Amino acid sequence: MADFKLTMPDGSIKDINQETTPMQIAQAISPSLAKKSVAARVDKHYVGMNEAIRFSGQFKLVTKDEDEALDILRHSTAHLLAQALRHLHPKIHLGVGPSISNGFYYDTDDSGESDKQVAADEFPAIEAEMAKIVKADLPINNRPVSRQEALQIFADDPYKVELINDLPEDEEITIAVQGDYTDLDRGGLVPSTGCIKHFALSSVAGAYWRGKSDNPMMQRIYGLSEWTAEDLQAQQTAITERKERDHRTIGRQMELFFTNQEIGAGLPVWLPNGAAIRRTIEDYVAEKERENGYLHVYTPVVSNLDLYKRSGHWDHYRDDMFPPMKADDGEELELRPMNCPSHIEVFEHEPRSYRDLPYRIAEFGQMHRWEKSGALTGLSRVREMTLNDGHTVVAPEQVESEFKEILRLIREVYADFGFTDKDYRFRLSYRDPKNTKKYYDDDAMWEHAQAALKRAMDDMHLDYFEAEGEAAFYGPKLDIQFRTALGNEETMSTIQLDFLLPERFDMKYTGEDGQDHRPVLIHRGVVGTMERFVAFLIEKYKGQFPTWLAPVQAVIIPVNYGAHGDYAQSIYSRLMKDGRRIKFDKRDEKLGYLIRDAQVSLKTPYILVVGDQEVQNGTVTVRLRGSDKTQEMSVDEFEKLINSDVANYSKGSEKVQEMLSK
Amino acid sequence: MADFKLTMPDGSIKDINQETTPMQIAQAISPSLAKKSVAARVDKHYVGMNEAIRFSGQFKLVTKDEDEALDILRHSTAHLLAQALRHLHPKIHLGVGPSISNGFYYDTDDSGESDKQVAADEFPAIEAEMAKIVKADLPINNRPVSRQEALQIFADDPYKVELINDLPEDEEITIAVQGDYTDLDRGGLVPSTGCIKHFALSSVAGAYWRGKSDNPMMQRIYGLSEWTAEDLQAQQTAITERKERDHRTIGRQMELFFTNQEIGAGLPVWLPNGAAIRRTIEDYVAEKERENGYLHVYTPVVSNLDLYKRSGHWDHYRDDMFPPMKADDGEELELRPMNCPSHIEVFEHEPRSYRDLPYRIAEFGQMHRWEKSGALTGLSRVREMTLNDGHTVVAPEQVESEFKEILRLIREVYADFGFTDKDYRFRLSYRDPKNTKKYYDDDAMWEHAQAALKRAMDDMHLDYFEAEGEAAFYGPKLDIQFRTALGNEETMSTIQLDFLLPERFDMKYTGEDGQDHRPVLIHRGVVGTMERFVAFLIEKYKGQFPTWLAPVQAVIIPVNYGAHGDYAQSIYSRLMKDGRRIKFDKRDEKLGYLIRDAQVSLKTPYILVVGDQEVQNGTVTVRLRGSDKTQEMSVDEFEKLINSDVANYSKGSEKVQEMLSK
Repeated sequence: MADFKLTMPDGSIKDINQETTPMQIAQAISPSLAKKSVAARVDKHYVGMNEAIRFSGQFKLVTKDEDEALDILRHSTAHLLAQALRHLHPKIHLGVGPSISNGFYYDTDDSGESDKQVAADEFPAIEAEMAKIVKADLPINNRPVSRQEALQIFADDPYKVELINDLPEDEEITIAVQGDYTDLDRGGLVPSTGCIKHFALSSVAGAYWRGKSDNPMMQRIYGLSEWTAEDLQAQQTAITERKERDHRTIGRQMELFFTNQEIGAGLPVWLPNGAAIRRTIEDYVAEKERENGYLHVYTPVVSNLDLYKRSGHWDHYRDDMFPPMKADDGEELELRPMNCPSHIEVFEHEPRSYRDLPYRIAEFGQMHRWEKSGALTGLSRVREMTLNDGHTVVAPEQVESEFKEILRLIREVYADFGFTDKDYRFRLSYRDPKNTKKYYDDDAMWEHAQAALKRAMDDMHLDYFEAEGEAAFYGPKLDIQFRTALGNEETMSTIQLDFLLPERFDMKYTGEDGQDHRPVLIHRGVVGTMERFVAFLIEKYKGQFPTWLAPVQAVIIPVNYGAHGDYAQSIYSRLMKDGRRIKFDKRDEKLGYLIRDAQVSLKTPYILVVGDQEVQNGTVTVRLRGSDKTQEMSVDEFEKLINSDVANYSKGSEKVQEMLSK
Repeated sequence: MADFKLTMPDGSIKDINQETTPMQIAQAISPSLAKKSVAARVDKHYVGMNEAIRFSGQFKLVTKDEDEALDILRHSTAHLLAQALRHLHPKIHLGVGPSISNGFYYDTDDSGESDKQVAADEFPAIEAEMAKIVKADLPINNRPVSRQEALQIFADDPYKVELINDLPEDEEITIAVQGDYTDLDRGGLVPSTGCIKHFALSSVAGAYWRGKSDNPMMQRIYGLSEWTAEDLQAQQTAITERKERDHRTIGRQMELFFTNQEIGAGLPVWLPNGAAIRRTIEDYVAEKERENGYLHVYTPVVSNLDLYKRSGHWDHYRDDMFPPMKADDGEELELRPMNCPSHIEVFEHEPRSYRDLPYRIAEFGQMHRWEKSGALTGLSRVREMTLNDGHTVVAPEQVESEFKEILRLIREVYADFGFTDKDYRFRLSYRDPKNTKKYYDDDAMWEHAQAALKRAMDDMHLDYFEAEGEAAFYGPKLDIQFRTALGNEETMSTIQLDFLLPERFDMKYTGEDGQDHRPVLIHRGVVGTMERFVAFLIEKYKGQFPTWLAPVQAVIIPVNYGAHGDYAQSIYSRLMKDGRRIKFDKRDEKLGYLIRDAQVSLKTPYILVVGDQEVQNGTVTVRLRGSDKTQEMSVDEFEKLINSDVANYSKGSEKVQEMLSK
């Protein structure tokens, strides 16, 4: 009699006894299948290729050509890293070691054993030890153990003990064993260490145990692992590229912004170069908004806490809000987490009629969010931010047309920044139907509003995908999702319908019938927060901002300050008067050094060199960023060139490239 | 033997006995002198004209042509008011009743007696009662009383009891008596109620007892009192004028800003019209600063509290700062009271050399000050404000030249707003030599710095006055004092030298000698805070902003929307494209009403009416604010006119006036 029954991929049923391994089944089908199989699954349980199958269910071999196999390889490489670390640091404590989107990591803590945690300079030694274990081709096996046995095995590893104790009483505990190394593991590993061939350690960074900032800080060691040398090489190139694009690195190099502990975590200071980019974007967007009928306001960043109790933010967002300020007279004040209540107060300041709708308010509204200190990152995750915020108050029947108007404006702005439909995708974010308690309680509203968004998108013939559980607590929204240069997906802009706040704040307008009516509130951001948008642009452009956005649009370098300084000054003054951002480099350094500095550190679009010839001809010699070719032209010509470059949002800069490369 | 010896104005000594009154002395000199004398002074003690002189000392008669006499009249009128109130509200409690710059007030509290405090609708009845007392011509007499007697007299008046108890043990207590009314008083009153002839009550407002917000709120009744009917009329006109100019009144009328209790006291919301003015000023000033070599930054409004401990603000300004925010992890955060520490962090972010100096940083920096709730007023006294802030870091030898540069910039800006030397005066603010403990402790620094400012002003041949005790705690400053439309003097801009913060923050730069040197920090504001500056401008211009600043620069009104709407729309679009702020008034109302609304409520510089004739001729009919004359001109002409009006900061608007009035 068979011990277990497997349903094969073709639907047939296979009876197996309790010694059968996936390898035997694969071999029976074909040796080539056996060769490319990495592990097997029975329903949701992983089984190692050489392990006895202990379940009945749907059987599947995972082969190297599947994404799942890569996860298994990377997960196995995390174990390989841990085994090597144990050889070199016998008492090191281990946390968790999963595969991630481009590799794997293992959280480690050697603070009990030595003052020095594992650092990047030890990577070559660790990689060598890993290679030894690969050469030994140790078989990897999973097996179930009792809770007591597990606690005994990991008695010296406090993080593992914590994990075991947190498992539900009735859950089976399994371990993975390879040679002298044992790990707590649910399976999904290659059959032996010999299968791991192309790997490398990439970086190390602090990470709180289980992501909580009151837990100890561990060292998270990141690594790569691929099936082929080519794939490993490609991953390494991508990492280098990401590092080069990292907005924190470029931010330092171009002197765009900084944060420090004196001012406080997550509170960035925009240096003059970064501030120039930001102000340019603000001016541009404000003008676009003005043209589209938005009225700009300035509203306070601090308010009486009661305002956010009324709005519901205090109930729903308290953990993300700054601590309140308690005044001696008992008043509690709060840094605002969002601008909506302030904009509602603007709407409600005067009686409004249907003739005033859509009523469009906009502001570069500063907000504060109490982000966990561990999550703070450069400009992209901060505690103080300025949102290009806008609110439109509409009559219910205007929701769809206004939604379309807003989306048109957003796409127009994107186009000026050089983004197309290929750079982003639309997400319709709905409430989580399984956890409706998290949301404003009005089923009819949710269904009506979600349907309205969907209908508008269909009308506009735009592609989108739907995501449950991504809505705001007060209504559904459209999120515009960008893939960042670092490979993550981020929400850049949103359009959110809100049927709740108009109720809470008793908003109304007089209709054509002379009666009071309840409007709908639409929240929208065009470019999101200035912080995250600029972080995104830095990485997108790799610091090489188009001329209209570049913090320094041209650098003027006299060949010899004494001889050509006056001429350089006259060009500087003329371009500054046009409103251009120009640097006059008066330093007494070699010309080549100054040109390289302008190209590499400042990433300036235009470099103008003036010497005897230029003084005599009334010209400048222009060099484009990233090019060695130069061209002499009259100052008039250059002035026209750079001014039109800026006026066109640097569209058609290929033409400039071409012209100057002749 | 004489009881007392008086030194007369001519230096002679007059012996008098203890029954002699100033009236007798005046009569003896000349009846006309007696007639115009209001009261007398012996040294600093006032003596009523009909009271016995009780002191020896320098004798002086106060005559009606002196300012001091007006104070005496107004002070006496306050008593007259109090007496009348006691007749009408027998149990009303009284606080203090002094003369003020244009009249007098008396603080009253009738809350113990009735629910209703004294209100303006009762003024006619009170004035009638006052007139009765004047007609009775009651003699007014001062006399000393024992502390016990005083407490007995005022036993029913708790505020007076508090005042008595607060007097030093050895101070003589005097009372003033007129008929059935007795007040605690040091003298300085007219001889009888019949001297008070031209008076009026003007307003009533809440005021905390002794100006402290934890004390009860009293009703402060304001009034006017003059020697002649003409002077009273002039004061009343001035008050009406002030009310009309009050930025809170105009702010409501033009929909510029508001505050409410939901958001919180002292936290103004800038409505679209006010925000348009503010943004125009910010853009203008930012451009001026850019031209003058300032680098703009954005720095956080909230910082770690330690930053303000290091800067000294926490020690010296704590009472003016918002309550700190205490995070769970123990960090204390603070809304910044000033921007200087943030700008110092910008300077210190990179090593600086003498070549980088003067290093000029600017920002529209938002700050928070915990003003007492009783002091908050519209936009002019607020808790959240944005300062047009700037800091220049200079080598010590650059202090004077940079000071002059800054002053030149400020005066240039003032000129564009239409202010001349007649609108402001310069105050050199020094530390108080009698209370040096309040200031940074470095005598040499103070003397050096105060002398440097004085020298620079003398070099520039600018008039100034010197004020001890007006310096900041870290150094002396130049204050630019404007007389506001409401008659107060306010500091609009300052240039402050600071030798302290460079020490505290260990600021340094590398000199030409390769060594570290300590720079000097100059704080400066060009137009001060946006809140106070705009409040000032509203009152200065009476809401009639010059075109470049006007929230709505032109209103277009079609005679008939159906017939002329399209043509009006085309003009609207054209002017909006030029960046003008235009309102297209589509309301179906009478033409006269719409024109008046644009002139009176919006105070729009240009009103354009288009009807059949204009459509046919391709013209607009232009009407200037405050004028009934109109002129037809081509759209081209008008476009040129309004654009050049804006480009010239509305200089030469008299010429426009003239042209359109032909």
